[in-house]
Amino acid sequence: MSGSTFGNIFKITTWGESHGRGLGVVIDGCPAGLLLSEEDIQQDMDRRKPGSNKYGTKRQEGDKVQIMSGVFEGKTTGTPISLIIFNEDQRSRDYSKIADVYRPGHADFGFESKYGIRDYRGGGRSSGRETSARVAAGAVARKLLKELGINIAAYTTAIGNVKAERINLNERFENPLCMPDNKSAEKASQLLDEAIKNCDSVGGIIECSVTGMPPGIGEPVFDKLDSSLAKAVMSIGAAKGIEFGDGFKAAESYGSYNNDSFYMSDEKVKKETNHSGGVLGGFSDGSNLIFRVAFKPTPSIAQPQKTVNNKGEDTEITITGRHDPIVVPRAVVVVEAMTAVTIADLMLMNMSAKLNNIKSFYL
Amino acid sequence: MSGSTFGNIFKITTWGESHGRGLGVVIDGCPAGLLLSEEDIQQDMDRRKPGSNKYGTKRQEGDKVQIMSGVFEGKTTGTPISLIIFNEDQRSRDYSKIADVYRPGHADFGFESKYGIRDYRGGGRSSGRETSARVAAGAVARKLLKELGINIAAYTTAIGNVKAERINLNERFENPLCMPDNKSAEKASQLLDEAIKNCDSVGGIIECSVTGMPPGIGEPVFDKLDSSLAKAVMSIGAAKGIEFGDGFKAAESYGSYNNDSFYMSDEKVKKETNHSGGVLGGFSDGSNLIFRVAFKPTPSIAQPQKTVNNKGEDTEITITGRHDPIVVPRAVVVVEAMTAVTIADLMLMNMSAKLNNIKSFYL
Amino acid sequence: MSGSTFGNIFKITTWGESHGRGLGVVIDGCPAGLLLSEEDIQQDMDRRKPGSNKYGTKRQEGDKVQIMSGVFEGKTTGTPISLIIFNEDQRSRDYSKIADVYRPGHADFGFESKYGIRDYRGGGRSSGRETSARVAAGAVARKLLKELGINIAAYTTAIGNVKAERINLNERFENPLCMPDNKSAEKASQLLDEAIKNCDSVGGIIECSVTGMPPGIGEPVFDKLDSSLAKAVMSIGAAKGIEFGDGFKAAESYGSYNNDSFYMSDEKVKKETNHSGGVLGGFSDGSNLIFRVAFKPTPSIAQPQKTVNNKGEDTEITITGRHDPIVVPRAVVVVEAMTAVTIADLMLMNMSAKLNNIKSFYL
Amino acid sequence: MSGSTFGNIFKITTWGESHGRGLGVVIDGCPAGLLLSEEDIQQDMDRRKPGSNKYGTKRQEGDKVQIMSGVFEGKTTGTPISLIIFNEDQRSRDYSKIADVYRPGHADFGFESKYGIRDYRGGGRSSGRETSARVAAGAVARKLLKELGINIAAYTTAIGNVKAERINLNERFENPLCMPDNKSAEKASQLLDEAIKNCDSVGGIIECSVTGMPPGIGEPVFDKLDSSLAKAVMSIGAAKGIEFGDGFKAAESYGSYNNDSFYMSDEKVKKETNHSGGVLGGFSDGSNLIFRVAFKPTPSIAQPQKTVNNKGEDTEITITGRHDPIVVPRAVVVVEAMTAVTIADLMLMNMSAKLNNIKSFYL
Repeated sequence: MSGSTFGNIFKITTWGESHGRGLGVVIDGCPAGLLLSEEDIQQDMDRRKPGSNKYGTKRQEGDKVQIMSGVFEGKTTGTPISLIIFNEDQRSRDYSKIADVYRPGHADFGFESKYGIRDYRGGGRSSGRETSARVAAGAVARKLLKELGINIAAYTTAIGNVKAERINLNERFENPLCMPDNKSAEKASQLLDEAIKNCDSVGGIIECSVTGMPPGIGEPVFDKLDSSLAKAVMSIGAAKGIEFGDGFKAAESYGSYNNDSFYMSDEKVKKETNHSGGVLGGFSDGSNLIFRVAFKPTPSIAQPQKTVNNKGEDTEITITGRHDPIVVPRAVVVVEAMTAVTIADLMLMNMSAKLNNIKSFYL
Repeated sequence: MSGSTFGNIFKITTWGESHGRGLGVVIDGCPAGLLLSEEDIQQDMDRRKPGSNKYGTKRQEGDKVQIMSGVFEGKTTGTPISLIIFNEDQRSRDYSKIADVYRPGHADFGFESKYGIRDYRGGGRSSGRETSARVAAGAVARKLLKELGINIAAYTTAIGNVKAERINLNERFENPLCMPDNKSAEKASQLLDEAIKNCDSVGGIIECSVTGMPPGIGEPVFDKLDSSLAKAVMSIGAAKGIEFGDGFKAAESYGSYNNDSFYMSDEKVKKETNHSGGVLGGFSDGSNLIFRVAFKPTPSIAQPQKTVNNKGEDTEITITGRHDPIVVPRAVVVVEAMTAVTIADLMLMNMSAKLNNIKSFYL
Repeated sequence: MSGSTFGNIFKITTWGESHGRGLGVVIDGCPAGLLLSEEDIQQDMDRRKPGSNKYGTKRQEGDKVQIMSGVFEGKTTGTPISLIIFNEDQRSRDYSKIADVYRPGHADFGFESKYGIRDYRGGGRSSGRETSARVAAGAVARKLLKELGINIAAYTTAIGNVKAERINLNERFENPLCMPDNKSAEKASQLLDEAIKNCDSVGGIIECSVTGMPPGIGEPVFDKLDSSLAKAVMSIGAAKGIEFGDGFKAAESYGSYNNDSFYMSDEKVKKETNHSGGVLGGFSDGSNLIFRVAFKPTPSIAQPQKTVNNKGEDTEITITGRHDPIVVPRAVVVVEAMTAVTIADLMLMNMSAKLNNIKSFYL
Repeated sequence: MSGSTFGNIFKITTWGESHGRGLGVVIDGCPAGLLLSEEDIQQDMDRRKPGSNKYGTKRQEGDKVQIMSGVFEGKTTGTPISLIIFNEDQRSRDYSKIADVYRPGHADFGFESKYGIRDYRGGGRSSGRETSARVAAGAVARKLLKELGINIAAYTTAIGNVKAERINLNERFENPLCMPDNKSAEKASQLLDEAIKNCDSVGGIIECSVTGMPPGIGEPVFDKLDSSLAKAVMSIGAAKGIEFGDGFKAAESYGSYNNDSFYMSDEKVKKETNHSGGVLGGFSDGSNLIFRVAFKPTPSIAQPQKTVNNKGEDTEITITGRHDPIVVPRAVVVVEAMTAVTIADLMLMNMSAKLNNIKSFYL
């Protein structure tokens, strides 16, 4: 079973390669009655588009999404929503040299081991561009969540060893690195310019914050909120780690510090601190959901690299063409998208938890 | 849909609370013909048993597993394998005080928000003991993987700020903290003794290593090897983060460093380094699989804590009874179990990837 | 993937063989707050028990169900409900003769082809007794549906060529054949007595009626109400056909006859006729749901039969021991159980169909 | 969860309405290395096309399929295969009259009950045309099965009360009713002409035969071969019943007749008769798989019909426009398609049943 489907109720199925005819996603289980237009989706797509920032490749990807089904007179009908991005810039010639070679840091070797065949054009199914389909699906999920008072915002919190000092959400749209801190973005820019000079690439960390979630969301024991998000986000290419709340720092904490005390405020249960990162025992706990994702440096660098080809021979490869020195700024909206899709699914699953609610629904 | 089922082909369904009649798991999709006995499973269960190490609680849990179905004349039949651990020490009176109170750091609040009802005895479905069922399932998966030349070994790599200095796998069975380094285990013991004095608890990190995996295991794009493992392992209570290979350090790396070069050796593709941690593009890449899991400190501490009750009143709680100051040593075999179950499933899913293999199978 | 799990939200996983230590089912996704006791389940189990009617075998099966988890203080908690029936009468010696032989009409050959191993005792996983676990699960689903005003009643509508002339639901409990018509039950008894004399068996048809379903239940296009029920019911051993409403007769109808006209009554949409059998376009349509299931004759007969053994030799077999000349009366509650489980699942899935409902739920 | 996905390994997800921008399907889990072209798929699509037979509507549907992904240099890559049929003839004006009315025999009422919204154009998601996507997916599955020696052939076995007298597979392509018997097709034609005169429609039965299946295919207990096929086929619009082998006739049989004896021939296990229809105990048994599906008459007839509208008012409707008096001939390839998809999935699932096979695969 190829794992191209994600979710239980709000279920997405993606398809497409960066150099095929197009990419797309089928969203099943989106409730009927949600206002949805191509503009709603396009605005998230545009946050992914290379060329819109200094450190993105100048390849013109088009990335115009079309709604093929599931929407009638501006509203979702409850039937599957098919979104398609038709490929425009597909120049295959960029990649013919690497048809037989396993690029270090890429999925080439894995694909050929598994399938015996590999569409070598671009990154095929593991290209950064494959994430366009996810972003499209995420836009729909995001719209649904907005109706329920839930908002998702991710941003670059570190590039290389340059960390954001503050979190001012507006600023993330003001610099090409999507950092919520223009000053640190400046420093990071310099780091990147250095890397580009050296034909190298850099990694980074994205932090994601979700507000407005009611407590109790998550399906124990395997579809907990954090395990579901971990699966969703770790499936993004180049993701190498995820942590919630204090994360790895919690491993060095004491219980007296790490436990978030509860207190009442306006008849709602609140927490004095948020070391848990908004998820506790696998459920949302009413606080903001906070997690961070580590991304490795883009593997496509222009330096010569030792490798092998699919005939079993040692060889060398120098990747030419246009490649991003960093993908983190583009991955920000992808992290938001996967988060939206996961939470939308869990919100729908949660509706059948109590008999009383079911009786109110039907009787 | 409560998420009590995990896997696609090798599929496990767990049930049971720490203070109910028992706990168990149903394993579906285990191939027929595997030698399996209760001893095979019991030896992994025993690694979880409290009382077998100084820092585990002295509660006698019994934890004797019984095979109820799916095995005939010592071999699996291909039908569902039901494993049950009947509860022996269930003293409910330990917990009656906290029936109405939300313990900080626990899932109480989440459970009641979601279901309106909570079995307050012990940790109910989120108790550490619930993991017994997972360990039982993991033992079966482990046995299957052993037949395929795959071995899994996890160990405590850090407790609080005490890190293991070396990795000597044998030593992990020689100290009660499951550290692969007796010297560091000594230091960590002292840290724990201090915590116990202060009625506090400590977190830690577990590292897991898997050897023998062929390349190409993983189902893109959502059931990749790392995203599947992330889901599996992050579903373990108290897990707050996971990272593969260089993990969060990769975020500070350069591509020229992070990329693992390929080379040929004995007609097999090998990698010069292993920054990827054995997973690349979502597939196993032939190197050892390495990942780390961060665990927060046990939330049950004997210090007084501010909290609220389910009547919406501020209150205080002091948790008495017997609780572990650290669960990491006990979680080691749970991490191995979830890893085994995940990899077993992906190994079976991989079999249908190539038409040629399918034709060989049937014709 | 062995298919031992059924359902999406209300999800059941069965295990156990007729001659193993026990049988059971894990029910996941049952809403919290439902009153549930062992008696609720036992009463359905008892309708299955052989020895309680003249044409059932006198084997004492026990069939006492125990609730192992998921219920606290008499109510479901939302966590998995594990139900177990411990085997009491397991006399294996009845079956040793047929260990190597493929009994005609049984799953022996299929099992060995697939798994290479077969637990030959009784029918193993395909024994009639395996359905006990389904009945247990069905009792829980039935209780949930009752809370929503939905009731399920099945009955034997034909045995051999003897058809029920009337449908008086009370009478089905008054004769051992579960026919809603005592007179026809008399005739059928004579037919069965004749069959027993000839060491033969007879088939039959079960009709099932569900009242109280709201319209719109079913998940297009593959999880429609009728396709889901078809899967559920056809999975019962010996089932060879299913038809809804006019069924195969509709194939000979004209559209002007088969179409059910709609009309308003008390502000509700009603249908003048019910040729559709309560399911239209894959959704419930507000009328009673009616369908029929055809069961083949029990394959275990005492006549000598030509067959082969697993060494590839032609041979003959005469099945001794105690076997039912007909299973239809016992299958009635199994049909109800699978219907209950299927409808419960679809009722829960239906809750997230409209955005407005989701907003009312959360805001 | 809208049920638009079908299958476990070979998994299809369909989307699209008859009057939207297009229809399509995403096939996940198709093994890599299968030769696949648009022609392979188009030939099955053409068997569905109206206008290609006297009794199909003259609406020009186009129905040209495009492969958007998953195929490279003529072979499947193992990545998702997206097939799209772009709509050409979408004249909405045909349907505006029925926007507010529930057509008897159609899914209109069900859709609006469930979603509160209905795309009234054509049949929306329940139109006959929606099946194009299934046929496309079925063509790919069929190609895969052909590689494994499995062939699927369905045909019209009855129209109204006119039954096929013989089964000559070639003849089904020689008459517009897809009957394997030209003579009976003649009679049926007359029946249909009469129905058209009366502004009425007729039902029919399709029989499907599958040759070449190895024994043991099916996943007990819920994903048996017959229950999986039942679900797949009953999800086709207008299907009202399914039966395997002797089907409902088996209900009137005796065990001594119904049991198929086994015997050895050329070292293979064969059956003397085939009352089981090739499926026994939920597994394929080595004989030809035979089943029949009953279809109700097309609900869209030109006679006036009493009904209600969505404002709760009694009204009347006369459906104009172009509608088939019978869909059975067009449904034949749809039955084959769903059969192919189901069997392909079960064939792949079967590969992990025995440990020995898994060891041979990996070691």
